[in-house]
Amino acid sequence: MLALIILNAVVLGLETSDALMARHGDWLWLLDQALLSVFVLEIGLRIVAWRGAFFRDPWSVFDFVVVAIALIPASGPFAVLRALRVLRVLRVLTIVPSMRRVVGGLLAALPGLSSIALVLLLVFYVFGVIATQIFGDSFPDWFGTLGRSLYTLFQVMTLESWSMGIVRPLMEVFPYAWTFFIPFILVATFTMLNLFIGVIVSAMQSFTTAETEATVSAVDNAREHIEADLHSEMRGLRAELAELKAMLRAQGPR
Amino acid sequence: MLALIILNAVVLGLETSDALMARHGDWLWLLDQALLSVFVLEIGLRIVAWRGAFFRDPWSVFDFVVVAIALIPASGPFAVLRALRVLRVLRVLTIVPSMRRVVGGLLAALPGLSSIALVLLLVFYVFGVIATQIFGDSFPDWFGTLGRSLYTLFQVMTLESWSMGIVRPLMEVFPYAWTFFIPFILVATFTMLNLFIGVIVSAMQSFTTAETEATVSAVDNAREHIEADLHSEMRGLRAELAELKAMLRAQGPR
Amino acid sequence: MLALIILNAVVLGLETSDALMARHGDWLWLLDQALLSVFVLEIGLRIVAWRGAFFRDPWSVFDFVVVAIALIPASGPFAVLRALRVLRVLRVLTIVPSMRRVVGGLLAALPGLSSIALVLLLVFYVFGVIATQIFGDSFPDWFGTLGRSLYTLFQVMTLESWSMGIVRPLMEVFPYAWTFFIPFILVATFTMLNLFIGVIVSAMQSFTTAETEATVSAVDNAREHIEADLHSEMRGLRAELAELKAMLRAQGPR
Amino acid sequence: MLALIILNAVVLGLETSDALMARHGDWLWLLDQALLSVFVLEIGLRIVAWRGAFFRDPWSVFDFVVVAIALIPASGPFAVLRALRVLRVLRVLTIVPSMRRVVGGLLAALPGLSSIALVLLLVFYVFGVIATQIFGDSFPDWFGTLGRSLYTLFQVMTLESWSMGIVRPLMEVFPYAWTFFIPFILVATFTMLNLFIGVIVSAMQSFTTAETEATVSAVDNAREHIEADLHSEMRGLRAELAELKAMLRAQGPR
Repeated sequence: MLALIILNAVVLGLETSDALMARHGDWLWLLDQALLSVFVLEIGLRIVAWRGAFFRDPWSVFDFVVVAIALIPASGPFAVLRALRVLRVLRVLTIVPSMRRVVGGLLAALPGLSSIALVLLLVFYVFGVIATQIFGDSFPDWFGTLGRSLYTLFQVMTLESWSMGIVRPLMEVFPYAWTFFIPFILVATFTMLNLFIGVIVSAMQSFTTAETEATVSAVDNAREHIEADLHSEMRGLRAELAELKAMLRAQGPR
Repeated sequence: MLALIILNAVVLGLETSDALMARHGDWLWLLDQALLSVFVLEIGLRIVAWRGAFFRDPWSVFDFVVVAIALIPASGPFAVLRALRVLRVLRVLTIVPSMRRVVGGLLAALPGLSSIALVLLLVFYVFGVIATQIFGDSFPDWFGTLGRSLYTLFQVMTLESWSMGIVRPLMEVFPYAWTFFIPFILVATFTMLNLFIGVIVSAMQSFTTAETEATVSAVDNAREHIEADLHSEMRGLRAELAELKAMLRAQGPR
Repeated sequence: MLALIILNAVVLGLETSDALMARHGDWLWLLDQALLSVFVLEIGLRIVAWRGAFFRDPWSVFDFVVVAIALIPASGPFAVLRALRVLRVLRVLTIVPSMRRVVGGLLAALPGLSSIALVLLLVFYVFGVIATQIFGDSFPDWFGTLGRSLYTLFQVMTLESWSMGIVRPLMEVFPYAWTFFIPFILVATFTMLNLFIGVIVSAMQSFTTAETEATVSAVDNAREHIEADLHSEMRGLRAELAELKAMLRAQGPR
Repeated sequence: MLALIILNAVVLGLETSDALMARHGDWLWLLDQALLSVFVLEIGLRIVAWRGAFFRDPWSVFDFVVVAIALIPASGPFAVLRALRVLRVLRVLTIVPSMRRVVGGLLAALPGLSSIALVLLLVFYVFGVIATQIFGDSFPDWFGTLGRSLYTLFQVMTLESWSMGIVRPLMEVFPYAWTFFIPFILVATFTMLNLFIGVIVSAMQSFTTAETEATVSAVDNAREHIEADLHSEMRGLRAELAELKAMLRAQGPR
């Protein structure tokens, strides 16, 4: 199956070459259709085998969706779907266990980031509305609508051409534009930084916790070992004392 | 309350659209005013209820300020305040506990960074003064005043167009300009890096300290458990010995 | 040997200066040839001395390859090899132990990153094929072939001119191009971030594991010490009890 | 002293303003001279007081150098020294203990990075020589000399305009230029990343080691406490046994 997906990836890659398509387009198309049929068949069999359980496994749903995309007639408004056929290649992620683990790990890190991501979103929204209202009329391409402002702020956050491209031209009209953008950059990058740190710390945490548990269980083992030792020694002593008592009792009172 | 703030955020977002404002401007304005009244009323009630304590809680002061901005007549030099009305949306931060915690966490990280931030500020100031004196006359747009130099150095620190945009043109006049900027970039980014590392390490520290405490308390528990065991065993032995002694005493001396 | 390599590095550096080559070119060339002869001789001796073992040590193979490059006649299609002679300087890495350790450390970090690097590669491939099919016809310079798309996506991942240089021009033809690039940037940088975190965490891990082992061995030592102490004390008690028993036995039954 | 340095910083900042200098230049210059005299006097007194010890303290040497710069006549080739007078402001670093600690921390991190920095330097040198030989003739501004190549490679490492500004123009002449620059970017940023990780890990290390020592000492304390307890209990038992023996001895053999 993995080999078929990789073969399909290669075929879809070759299809991007106009020269190759002109000469071998038919063959590539046929091969692609054949592979697609195999995938459809495989998904179909899995649905029949697993029934409802199939759609409860997110990896299976993912497989279903990326294969299903290819079955939608790619015409008119759906023309872009033709290009999305290559998403099928992502099925490699669901098949190779080590990659599945990586993707699982990436996805597992997301929920812990939701709070800080929401704060970042709020910061973007607030700065976006302000930018649209202040700079929108003079620079419609960058800040004409809320959407454009958000896109421009995202660009500024990635630090791409923020100064030479955006803020210096702005400062020719609004000399104090830097009082808006420098705080935005500081807030946005500091928040991103903390998002990033959140991922590191949580990765370390789960690991350090395991180490701590190892240490604590070593301590507990040591304690149990010592106590077992103590009890066995004491059993020995008690036996000796019991013998002594028996001997004394045998002598009886005078 | 959260719903009202989000509704207000949406209204303020819609107000950035000229097309929508032309058609439904009155409605949106009315809705905004109504929401503002609710917020003013709420803040008013909270001030009456909490009295002086209200202004001692930084979150409350924040709520007060962002609502108060909307009450200042936004005309003449205060026109920009109209745009700041959207800061009201940040009240979400003070209402949702998880976001409040995130913001609290971000703010809590700041004091620990003050020393290193001061060092960075000093580095900026020193490089800024030097840049103004050396490059100011030839490149007034970038280094004409201390303020412009600091802005340009900030841009250089973010690495935005530092070479193609700033230093290469400079080097046509001052061939050794790189002896100024490359050290600046190294010092500034290395200091920033350490600021960043400071945040990571302090985040890890508070966490690792908790783990160490858990381990140490496990050790103490183990110790107490062992000693309690030892004492109880010893109590048993002493009782046996006391019995032996009593038996011997009953036999009496010959 | 180290001195010779550094001398060779300086010679190769001087050879890049046209003015110096015009005046002292012959000398530099002779010196370079002499140094090369020494290196060839040294490698030759090592091959004779170690035989097959020579080619099983990756550092030795590295030495062999970078010296061998200089022996290939640098003409016609191999002209570029002349420039690669400087790779010889990298032999410093195999000679200085501290640098060898650094390089070893860098290479050791790579296998642990292979899974996540494969995921990143897959993401690049999928986005590359889609970009070629959608944007290829309108922007052949950037997305004309799969190779160009991959190069452009790499540039976008490094955030270099991604918006002003690539996406804004694209959005004039495809207004929704941002729905392709912003997810790509988020996915690619988040995956890179995790690759990065993987390196940090594994570096910390090997270190923290050593610390945990130190702690666990301290716990084990403490346990052994306590038990040895307990046994020696008990031996003392048993001796006393044995004496008591002997005394009682001497008294005999009445 | 701190107040004087900050006052001097402000004066030097004001001197960058042409308008202020035109009006109050004399006053500012006098104030600057007066402050300089105070600093010279202070350094002089410290040299007299500490004698040779003065020059063995790196912080003192730093103070001496930054004050001495102002005494060199700033004319002719030394004109740039006039601008360096502001380095005096850096004396704040040597006076405020918290900033001194930060700078000390930054400098303390450097030696641990020297090995990896040397590897990076070597990588730069090798790539620089290759770039000069291959690209030097066609792009003399960027790769004409070894120095220019190193500067351009530094720019490429910071990812500033590396693609749109440098590599894409190069690829019009050398279509395979990407085989040089993409490996360079990967190697250089991966090495930088490891340099960075080195700082984080060593910062964590010193901290985690302290935690481990705390845990190990807790284990040792627990051990000592248990053993002391054991010994004191045993002393009690031995006393009882000694009493028993005395009683038996008093009964004597029958």
